[in-house]
Amino acid sequence: MAKLGVAVLGVGEMGQRHAANLRRLVPEASLVAVADVDLRRARQVAEELELEHCHGGAEALLERKDVQAVVIAVPDKFHAEAVRATAQAGKHILCEKPLALTLDDAAAALEAVEKAGVCLQVGFMRRYDPAYLSAKKRIEAGEIGEPIIFKAIGRDRDDPPLSLYEAALNGMLFFNSSIHEFDLARWLMAGEVAEVQAYSTVLGRPEVARFGDIVAGVVNLRFRSGAIGNVESYVQCQYGYDVRTEIVGSKGTLAVGHLSETAEVVLTASGRRHDLVGHSLVRFADAYVSEIRDFVQTVQVGRPPRITGEDGWRAVAIAESALQSSEQSRPVPVRDRLR
Amino acid sequence: MAKLGVAVLGVGEMGQRHAANLRRLVPEASLVAVADVDLRRARQVAEELELEHCHGGAEALLERKDVQAVVIAVPDKFHAEAVRATAQAGKHILCEKPLALTLDDAAAALEAVEKAGVCLQVGFMRRYDPAYLSAKKRIEAGEIGEPIIFKAIGRDRDDPPLSLYEAALNGMLFFNSSIHEFDLARWLMAGEVAEVQAYSTVLGRPEVARFGDIVAGVVNLRFRSGAIGNVESYVQCQYGYDVRTEIVGSKGTLAVGHLSETAEVVLTASGRRHDLVGHSLVRFADAYVSEIRDFVQTVQVGRPPRITGEDGWRAVAIAESALQSSEQSRPVPVRDRLR
Amino acid sequence: MAKLGVAVLGVGEMGQRHAANLRRLVPEASLVAVADVDLRRARQVAEELELEHCHGGAEALLERKDVQAVVIAVPDKFHAEAVRATAQAGKHILCEKPLALTLDDAAAALEAVEKAGVCLQVGFMRRYDPAYLSAKKRIEAGEIGEPIIFKAIGRDRDDPPLSLYEAALNGMLFFNSSIHEFDLARWLMAGEVAEVQAYSTVLGRPEVARFGDIVAGVVNLRFRSGAIGNVESYVQCQYGYDVRTEIVGSKGTLAVGHLSETAEVVLTASGRRHDLVGHSLVRFADAYVSEIRDFVQTVQVGRPPRITGEDGWRAVAIAESALQSSEQSRPVPVRDRLR
Amino acid sequence: MAKLGVAVLGVGEMGQRHAANLRRLVPEASLVAVADVDLRRARQVAEELELEHCHGGAEALLERKDVQAVVIAVPDKFHAEAVRATAQAGKHILCEKPLALTLDDAAAALEAVEKAGVCLQVGFMRRYDPAYLSAKKRIEAGEIGEPIIFKAIGRDRDDPPLSLYEAALNGMLFFNSSIHEFDLARWLMAGEVAEVQAYSTVLGRPEVARFGDIVAGVVNLRFRSGAIGNVESYVQCQYGYDVRTEIVGSKGTLAVGHLSETAEVVLTASGRRHDLVGHSLVRFADAYVSEIRDFVQTVQVGRPPRITGEDGWRAVAIAESALQSSEQSRPVPVRDRLR
Repeated sequence: MAKLGVAVLGVGEMGQRHAANLRRLVPEASLVAVADVDLRRARQVAEELELEHCHGGAEALLERKDVQAVVIAVPDKFHAEAVRATAQAGKHILCEKPLALTLDDAAAALEAVEKAGVCLQVGFMRRYDPAYLSAKKRIEAGEIGEPIIFKAIGRDRDDPPLSLYEAALNGMLFFNSSIHEFDLARWLMAGEVAEVQAYSTVLGRPEVARFGDIVAGVVNLRFRSGAIGNVESYVQCQYGYDVRTEIVGSKGTLAVGHLSETAEVVLTASGRRHDLVGHSLVRFADAYVSEIRDFVQTVQVGRPPRITGEDGWRAVAIAESALQSSEQSRPVPVRDRLR
Repeated sequence: MAKLGVAVLGVGEMGQRHAANLRRLVPEASLVAVADVDLRRARQVAEELELEHCHGGAEALLERKDVQAVVIAVPDKFHAEAVRATAQAGKHILCEKPLALTLDDAAAALEAVEKAGVCLQVGFMRRYDPAYLSAKKRIEAGEIGEPIIFKAIGRDRDDPPLSLYEAALNGMLFFNSSIHEFDLARWLMAGEVAEVQAYSTVLGRPEVARFGDIVAGVVNLRFRSGAIGNVESYVQCQYGYDVRTEIVGSKGTLAVGHLSETAEVVLTASGRRHDLVGHSLVRFADAYVSEIRDFVQTVQVGRPPRITGEDGWRAVAIAESALQSSEQSRPVPVRDRLR
Repeated sequence: MAKLGVAVLGVGEMGQRHAANLRRLVPEASLVAVADVDLRRARQVAEELELEHCHGGAEALLERKDVQAVVIAVPDKFHAEAVRATAQAGKHILCEKPLALTLDDAAAALEAVEKAGVCLQVGFMRRYDPAYLSAKKRIEAGEIGEPIIFKAIGRDRDDPPLSLYEAALNGMLFFNSSIHEFDLARWLMAGEVAEVQAYSTVLGRPEVARFGDIVAGVVNLRFRSGAIGNVESYVQCQYGYDVRTEIVGSKGTLAVGHLSETAEVVLTASGRRHDLVGHSLVRFADAYVSEIRDFVQTVQVGRPPRITGEDGWRAVAIAESALQSSEQSRPVPVRDRLR
Repeated sequence: MAKLGVAVLGVGEMGQRHAANLRRLVPEASLVAVADVDLRRARQVAEELELEHCHGGAEALLERKDVQAVVIAVPDKFHAEAVRATAQAGKHILCEKPLALTLDDAAAALEAVEKAGVCLQVGFMRRYDPAYLSAKKRIEAGEIGEPIIFKAIGRDRDDPPLSLYEAALNGMLFFNSSIHEFDLARWLMAGEVAEVQAYSTVLGRPEVARFGDIVAGVVNLRFRSGAIGNVESYVQCQYGYDVRTEIVGSKGTLAVGHLSETAEVVLTASGRRHDLVGHSLVRFADAYVSEIRDFVQTVQVGRPPRITGEDGWRAVAIAESALQSSEQSRPVPVRDRLR
């Protein structure tokens, strides 16, 4: 089978990882070019990865005949528009999460994708992590009985720099971080979230309030099935990248946990100590490879993507409800009809 | 110092433990008598512990001149009334949680205590657990900076038998189980809960709905300080007695976790496996001893109890708000004025 | 059944624990008296435990008619002689490990016991620990197939004070510490050790060499069955009381491990940290209670003790061989015939 | 800097991994060709990795002008001879462990290397693992005080097929498996092993005795410094690839431990269970990449290799002594002079 020509749009930290994975670890693909509004950065990545082509923007990239698929890794704010433009150019798409920052933008993007008849996959890479995959299989096999509670913690180590807030390029907590948990909730519980209740806080970093953001949130979930849940997100826990998910069932519980980064343990008079994984690119390194490789194969064989545009839309819908709930101090139903 | 004459009212599982601890491990006390509406049970306990006196009810017990303090371990439903009667009899009181099943009952009990001028301590034994004590000290010492999120899981292994529901003797989930977490929230975060949002479910055991109870609940907390939190409770997790609490601060996080019951680990082709603590009387065995001993010493030296009637009242207030929130699907403020 | 009259000879740390357990947690026994060459200490213990009698030595104790059994917790050096004298006085015996510091002394003690027809149990309390008991049962049930390797680590936190060495009251490392592992090896592998190879060191504390002791030893074991093993002992690891035992079988491995002392975990930028059990009296608190209670019941019903004088002798035999091997740099067979 | 032309000799499991790493993850190298006596296998690997050249043996490979360095991953038995031939062809060498199966062969190989003036690195990849590297740094920084005990377990999951024994291509346990631990002992303790005492067994698989091999060994180490240690090796533990190393010091202990393969934990009535790493290629995946990349850079800049031929020789010397000790039942000194 011929190699799929792929390009990466946006080569910040995340885009660089996708590009490197495509270049080195996906034999089914040929990484044709990268693009970034910061052309110098695009050039540097192209050089490091020994690519022939790089571009200073999407337009030139989307005109390339040798590109059949595009990985979108621009800032959150531009996801929906980039999906629209890429679809119109007739390219298949792997779009980083979130699909959009509003449901309207998400719907517009999906419409363009549908019209163009291209494949769109949304970048919820955790679904490719061996631990999450194993949990999904056990749940489907009935190992824990009926799922009753969904429980998730997503803590990140470092408070993002204020400049990031000022640029307003990324979605706030519920859209940028909790969105992973919202997707896991739907996927692992195999059902939709009907309503949410949320509190948020700026404690410890009140200055982010100026930018409409928060440092932490707790979101109660009520599923249509009657199951319940809670998602906690926090962006500056200092001690590591701590992602934990539990599915509590009537016969047992599955927990996907936080891991040591190395295998070293230090035993001294002050106790037993080991490190913790510090970054999502470490914790989910293998998942990112599996994700991009599966996307490439999906396009090649023309099968439906494992994580669809609708999945992207529904996660945004939960985030939007969580935001409203935390602002208006009331439970907010989650929108169900895409259009 | 003379030994304090103590009696135990209600010798079910919990009362038996208190009686045994008093008899064997509190040299400052003399266990004078036990009482239970089931006189046969009282007699059996008295025999096992080599006590001279046992009674078939509270009246006879409260008339005893050699009893200066009473441990109340009757079913939840009778706590408030037992506190009232014991206070009127001029005895000091260690009352099992919850103090009452309604705020009005709690207030009436506190009034009687105040009037009688006796000491009342409420049985939130976790405050005596070395792990929780250490966490409290670290928070006070500023080790984790500003507390931002309170997170608690309280799962119990076995679904209580339906007969227990039928007898309607115990408080439902929020009053009987989550109440521990509500107390920890106030104590560890050193501040009051202003409002809660709750969902509950009867999934996996719909028949408990008949008795107005639930099998699981998730309760979001908003503290007056701006901190947020979540309490999850579940009564039939099957795998153990799983009590976990985290206090997430601006500089670090403290977690009080779930423990193995034994030190054995089994390594086979199906992985690495160990057991889990299965019962609160095992997990908090030492805490129960410390609690009862501290209570006895508190009465002897006449100092204020470590966990007051007001603490008991406030935990009930949170439980009451959680119940209302889960029933009315709206955030409910937590009552603040005792009277 | 009438209570068994028991006395404790030697009320240092270990004897105090036995006395307290007997007084409080063994309803089948009556703690009649304690004795210690330090009469002041005996008096203090008697007072704390509200005992009527205490003595300044073994003679008075052994003359008491109300004493049917004696717990021997004097320094190691006096174990064998104390067993002999107690047996001659017709009292049943629970003797702390090691039974003796030489095989000849051990044999003499056993002879006296046999002649007197009393019950002798040796204090290998680990056999009463739930984790070790569970491991033993799994091995017997064939869960790990054929036992192939026995592996044990025994590390203690604090270097004993030099005064202890000077007094020469306790056995050196192999007799005082590794002896537990030697007993576990025989018990868990259900077979005898045929030969040992040992190295020892005084590194980190060369001054103990003056007293003929060592700070650490590694002892290879060859079992008669063909199985092999290794025992490591170290007296000053600083970080805790770290006792770990593994039985590696053809189908799986059982590990009895080191535990946290509390359930608290601290998560900060320097990693994940928790404490470790610091003392054998904490790690094996429950085992000591089970041990003494089982001993009392054993005497009452007249059944053979769970850990016999021969078990005590054989553990000493392994220790003696380990000592010779480390001194003579050659493999040393383990003596097999008791007399 | 020009890319280094590298070839891989022997593309079994290990050689394939080296080839893939070179092809994909070492930008400083160009993988020119692979060779294997099984030409079909060489061809298949070349195809998978999109290489132009493959060979049916070493001769053709060593004649290639575009090859400056060779990774030797042929069976253990041929290591020494392959090193000799490769050195004579003037190519730099990364040789898988063990360097040889006898000290004489090892010495002959080193002589050829020295004469040819090429760079030889021996494949003790664990020295590149982040956990071992961190431990090494902590020891050097004095964090655990004086190293007193070296402790290592190396267990592999699956008993190698008997055909492997029949072919007699690989070194027996001490040369093929324990050799890693012997190298770690020297490296982490920063000192040489003076003498060893070993026991071995064929329990559980007596048929390997026919081929002169064993299933398990325990090797006591005496270091020149006075430190002591023990290495346990076992080839069929069933439950995983369990590599654990501890360095016990006067102030603390470092443990490099066994890890979960995924982050999933299963909690059911039978306890808490998670998987274990099952294969060295998973456990040390990153170490293999770091190793080969460092080797390439070492050759490029002409610096001495991090793991030298002498390191290879000394590990073989310990293995040879362990074998003799286990066969002759006596302590055996470790040879010190290379020639």
